Amino acid sequence: MAVYTKVSAEEIEDFLTRFDVGTLVSAKGIAEGVENSNYLIETTQDRFILTLYEKRVDPNDLPFFITMLDHLADKNCPVPPMISDRVGIKIQKLCGKSACLIKFLPGISVTTPTPLQARATGKALGEMHNALTDFTGKRANSMDHDTWRELATDCGPNELDAIAPGLQVVVDEELDHLDQNWPGELPISVIHADLFPDNVLMLDDQVTGLIDFYFSCTDIRAYDVAVTHAAWCFSEDGEKFDAAVSEALITGYDEIFHLSAEDRAALPVLARGASLRFMLTRAYDWINTPADALVTRKDPMAFLNRLKFYQENPDIFQI
Amino acid sequence: MAVYTKVSAEEIEDFLTRFDVGTLVSAKGIAEGVENSNYLIETTQDRFILTLYEKRVDPNDLPFFITMLDHLADKNCPVPPMISDRVGIKIQKLCGKSACLIKFLPGISVTTPTPLQARATGKALGEMHNALTDFTGKRANSMDHDTWRELATDCGPNELDAIAPGLQVVVDEELDHLDQNWPGELPISVIHADLFPDNVLMLDDQVTGLIDFYFSCTDIRAYDVAVTHAAWCFSEDGEKFDAAVSEALITGYDEIFHLSAEDRAALPVLARGASLRFMLTRAYDWINTPADALVTRKDPMAFLNRLKFYQENPDIFQI
Repeated sequence: MAVYTKVSAEEIEDFLTRFDVGTLVSAKGIAEGVENSNYLIETTQDRFILTLYEKRVDPNDLPFFITMLDHLADKNCPVPPMISDRVGIKIQKLCGKSACLIKFLPGISVTTPTPLQARATGKALGEMHNALTDFTGKRANSMDHDTWRELATDCGPNELDAIAPGLQVVVDEELDHLDQNWPGELPISVIHADLFPDNVLMLDDQVTGLIDFYFSCTDIRAYDVAVTHAAWCFSEDGEKFDAAVSEALITGYDEIFHLSAEDRAALPVLARGASLRFMLTRAYDWINTPADALVTRKDPMAFLNRLKFYQENPDIFQI
Repeated sequence: MAVYTKVSAEEIEDFLTRFDVGTLVSAKGIAEGVENSNYLIETTQDRFILTLYEKRVDPNDLPFFITMLDHLADKNCPVPPMISDRVGIKIQKLCGKSACLIKFLPGISVTTPTPLQARATGKALGEMHNALTDFTGKRANSMDHDTWRELATDCGPNELDAIAPGLQVVVDEELDHLDQNWPGELPISVIHADLFPDNVLMLDDQVTGLIDFYFSCTDIRAYDVAVTHAAWCFSEDGEKFDAAVSEALITGYDEIFHLSAEDRAALPVLARGASLRFMLTRAYDWINTPADALVTRKDPMAFLNRLKFYQENPDIFQI
């Protein structure tokens, strides 16, 4: 959410000569996305996002992301294509970092989604899953269910309780519950795995862009629905569940990509898993990030609240 | 250089209904300018910068800045006008902060200026000074020569030497020199007082925008030339002086706004003062900002190097 690598206008001008995109008219560092450096670039021809990949994105994963985006774009999903240079190369080097020039997409990210917006997002997620059924790329989920116990341990022996008294016990019991109930037979697919409202661009209740694919990976397909549900159907602090938004999201998705009885039955445990995953990564970052650092720390409690809601309301997906 | 106040897309959409500017299409937080929060906004009609004023800008100064920008725009200086809402108001409130909607200007800020770019900037500064000769607004310079001794004291008894051994003596001697030699009879004007390359937008060696007027104030007019000279004619670390850029900047300015013999004679001491001013404010921020804070600390040594250069080369303005 900051600009980590400062690229001068002259360096950007020079970088753009590799492409057939016109010459530089404006360049602004933008606060966007995961921990990459992003510039909103305007040329004499068009607008682009220039992304420099910082430590959280492994350059070895870039070919997977590019192939996935090309596949989705070919099937008319609203994803931002990465631009090829004059000799066909998309993964560039700039200021010592891996870098890509990406088409700019209009649209805004909502903070408090309406049911209509959630329905459109559910449909867009379903269309993305449809488009990915014949995608052969694979990428392990570095944040999958098997990693959560170790992540909880890595938070340290007393740190979870320092965030909230009793949190360690909640986490331990939930890890046990998930180990006993995590579905083993559901369909696997490449998924987005991080479809928060920040990563959906909208205009007039229409989805104009799905962005920030840097957590996308191979995992249980319905887990993507669970992540999106946890991200969209609560107030930011997780204290208020919005039943209308929830119903719209699930209905929109199901209309495009049918949720099987098995998917639907698994959604409560998948949503508990999604809540625990974001609670743990936020807790880890909270513990390991100084309060005044460049990165804004996100409150882990917001996902503890979601976890508790899903524990107490397993029936909400039966709509 | 960061986004301090997070404004949701819904809040921006709502804010824009006060104006006749179309509806929101895109909004990106940008890392720009002094410590304000800035969003690059696209509507169905045009592009704008939305600025929320944080602690470094006193809301009571906003009417001065707006009157100044209107005055300059009326005289065809390339400054970004602030947009009036439907009832003629420019200073708004948003998220509890004073806020303005400002016209977006194309252009890029160079990092390593060429002589042609410096010449264009000198001319633009001269044109701005020309346009301000009949401007009646006044604003005290909160960073003027009279404040520097107190600023040095506020850095603390040992902190300057901790930045660089011997720095305290250099500062004390320079303060004495400036007190003895600071010009008392030169023409006064409203000046920009912070015309670094960051604050000049250019396309093809032409100035397309002068921005970030939040240090503008009433002071010795030639001091603005000295500040601009110190900002433009050195490598960023202040170790390399560029004589061709210096000559182009001064010549360009003089062509539009004649430098009197008195101005020219005073430039060496004014440039030493400008160097000390930025060295001291950077030192103060360096001492009082944690190394890992949201704000990037700028190296005070870059302006100590400039100060030493001006001490040793008083003849460079005799061109």
